[in-house]
Amino acid sequence: MKAEIIAVGSELLLGQINNTNARYLSAGLAELGISVHFHTVVGDNPGRLEEAIRIAESRADLLIFTGGLGPTKDDLTKETIARHAGARLVYDDEALVSIRAWFDRMGREMTDNNKKQALILEGATVLQNHHGMAPGMLFASGSRHYLLLPGPPKEMEPMFTVQAKPNLARLAGFSGPIASRVFRFYGIGEAELEHRMSDLLDNQTNPTLAPLASDGEVTIRATAKAKTVEEAAGLLDGAEAEIRKIAGQYLYGYDEETLVSKAASLLIGNGLTISAAESLTAGLFMSELAEQPGISAALTGGVVTYTADSKKEQLGIPAALLEEKGVVSEETASAMAKAVREKFGTDYGVGLTGAAGPDPHDGKPGGTVWVAIASGEEMRTRELLLSGMRNTNRIRAVKSAMHMLIRMIGDTSVRDN
Amino acid sequence: MKAEIIAVGSELLLGQINNTNARYLSAGLAELGISVHFHTVVGDNPGRLEEAIRIAESRADLLIFTGGLGPTKDDLTKETIARHAGARLVYDDEALVSIRAWFDRMGREMTDNNKKQALILEGATVLQNHHGMAPGMLFASGSRHYLLLPGPPKEMEPMFTVQAKPNLARLAGFSGPIASRVFRFYGIGEAELEHRMSDLLDNQTNPTLAPLASDGEVTIRATAKAKTVEEAAGLLDGAEAEIRKIAGQYLYGYDEETLVSKAASLLIGNGLTISAAESLTAGLFMSELAEQPGISAALTGGVVTYTADSKKEQLGIPAALLEEKGVVSEETASAMAKAVREKFGTDYGVGLTGAAGPDPHDGKPGGTVWVAIASGEEMRTRELLLSGMRNTNRIRAVKSAMHMLIRMIGDTSVRDN
Repeated sequence: MKAEIIAVGSELLLGQINNTNARYLSAGLAELGISVHFHTVVGDNPGRLEEAIRIAESRADLLIFTGGLGPTKDDLTKETIARHAGARLVYDDEALVSIRAWFDRMGREMTDNNKKQALILEGATVLQNHHGMAPGMLFASGSRHYLLLPGPPKEMEPMFTVQAKPNLARLAGFSGPIASRVFRFYGIGEAELEHRMSDLLDNQTNPTLAPLASDGEVTIRATAKAKTVEEAAGLLDGAEAEIRKIAGQYLYGYDEETLVSKAASLLIGNGLTISAAESLTAGLFMSELAEQPGISAALTGGVVTYTADSKKEQLGIPAALLEEKGVVSEETASAMAKAVREKFGTDYGVGLTGAAGPDPHDGKPGGTVWVAIASGEEMRTRELLLSGMRNTNRIRAVKSAMHMLIRMIGDTSVRDN
Repeated sequence: MKAEIIAVGSELLLGQINNTNARYLSAGLAELGISVHFHTVVGDNPGRLEEAIRIAESRADLLIFTGGLGPTKDDLTKETIARHAGARLVYDDEALVSIRAWFDRMGREMTDNNKKQALILEGATVLQNHHGMAPGMLFASGSRHYLLLPGPPKEMEPMFTVQAKPNLARLAGFSGPIASRVFRFYGIGEAELEHRMSDLLDNQTNPTLAPLASDGEVTIRATAKAKTVEEAAGLLDGAEAEIRKIAGQYLYGYDEETLVSKAASLLIGNGLTISAAESLTAGLFMSELAEQPGISAALTGGVVTYTADSKKEQLGIPAALLEEKGVVSEETASAMAKAVREKFGTDYGVGLTGAAGPDPHDGKPGGTVWVAIASGEEMRTRELLLSGMRNTNRIRAVKSAMHMLIRMIGDTSVRDN
């Protein structure tokens, strides 16, 4: 089964928003073994939309539309498909009730144009919208299937995953299992990893291996097809063993794990607490940790000391040390880590100081960063020489600190066992 | 002139990354008055890429490609265009020198496959890559133009804006002026704003008005076409006067301004300093401010007090107050704002406490947030009842605090004058 994703909306062609729906849907379809050969974006123009439908019908069995189901005159997706397929539009009672209820909750009058949102293609399977008003639908015509989804990701994503995906799995005769595993690396570049793995990548058939780099991290997605779940898992295990031989020391996690989620789960799982003293990152390290559910068991708090004075006053870093070694130095980062750990009474204390860039700071070139992590027993430090923009460097500094923390907890818990 | 943007890369069809390039390019083309009617995404497959080229040639004068210019076997964009257009590929000496220099800087051996990146379509205008290796090119064949750009946004964006855009402006016979102005609103929903502006939106011709909602903010982009710059600016001023009449109290900024950049520039411009005590946001308020260049003049630092104990120990919030009023309360937020302001000796102190959600926290439902801002003369507080996911609520809390700060500095500087 081949699919094409058609996003409808002039705001996409004007560059006002990214077509994040196409990415979300593509990832979901890949899990079902449905190949996506094209994405198309077309504006709120019925003629051009119909042209896009005709082209997609010539090369796909499943057409997935996002957007254009709303109440305004510009919303034309289902009207255009109805005309093109010779189908009627009829009111769906459940959708109508749900739209009325939406307005009641808001304490507002339902205007006539909103009724249009309850129109569906006759004979379609209706996908109720639990996060907005316009329902989606799955419609068959000839040998093709048409899935219509709302544009706002908050409405589209749950509707696709909860309601549409099981239907598509059946349509695709999905008997599985297709299993995939994402391997996550830190500390090695994409080119270097691909170079080391070139034999493996050249001879991949099952599982297939797809490397991807983003923001200082590299991932490899392995996808295996097999007759049973066990067989698929065995194929992935085999690939993992090969990958570990080649670059095992850089592998830090799997699938949806990130450096932050891994660090958080290690802290929480080991009953450890943490605090941070942040200069160039100004709270980003703690804020990233705080995104993780359950983190209140581990994250006690910390201090942002953006100025040199605040480092002295809030953390008691000696003026002589700042003078002699500099604000951006291994000694200052270590002193920050040690001071915040003591101040907040935590197992770990993190110190981050640096020149975010592009300008030098305190005599150090932009991109120079020192990370220190103090525990009761040891102090680890790392110098980074980053070449990105200001905010890229701040994000990289946080990632590096998370990576150090993962290593440090990992080494300690291995030693303790 | 009509354009189509064709992104080449299987990673896009697998849902591994978003096609952010299409957005960036579309916004840039809109500024030149070049209409974009379609975006297409196609995988690293020469047959399907050629099909996409044929279709695009039937409906566009300018084909813009991103991706597929790299060194690997999967990179096929220029090879496919060359075959399709009957053009030769030749080495570009400058690109070759630049690729060699890149490897020299990295201290690594240049492998043969990297040489392929210096191949260009014979007769094309070469766009050198100052942020990577593969050059771009602008190529003419028949009545059509083909712009080839690298896939990584860090390489593509400057190459497009600095090198390609002036060339495209000439091709499009761009005599201008098309002027646009983005109006930024906070505190009003998209539906409510559109409702108030319905007459204006229905009768728009020049300037055109395009509303857009994202993440709790709403913007309206006004685009005017005229014979002179002055005339275009006059048309925009006229639209602004109308918009101010309808929703002036919600308008906080223009164009690329954000709540954060506006808050930062007001702080810096007025020589004011700020500190923050953050609980649910855990450093996000300070970190967002720190993204702004020049902020070290204003941001002194602050404290993250994630636990109740740290609020007592680090900020001296009385246990009785936390007990009686609760951690999530107007009184606690105010006490945090006051304490951090005194501790760091700043003009403003911000306190943020709340239940990020989804679970209740300290008896308050998830999404309940209190923001307080203390200055020497006054204390302002605001309660938010948010319904988003955990991180959406944290981001909204920060935006609301930035908005309060903008108002507070604005009111004070008006009063002082």
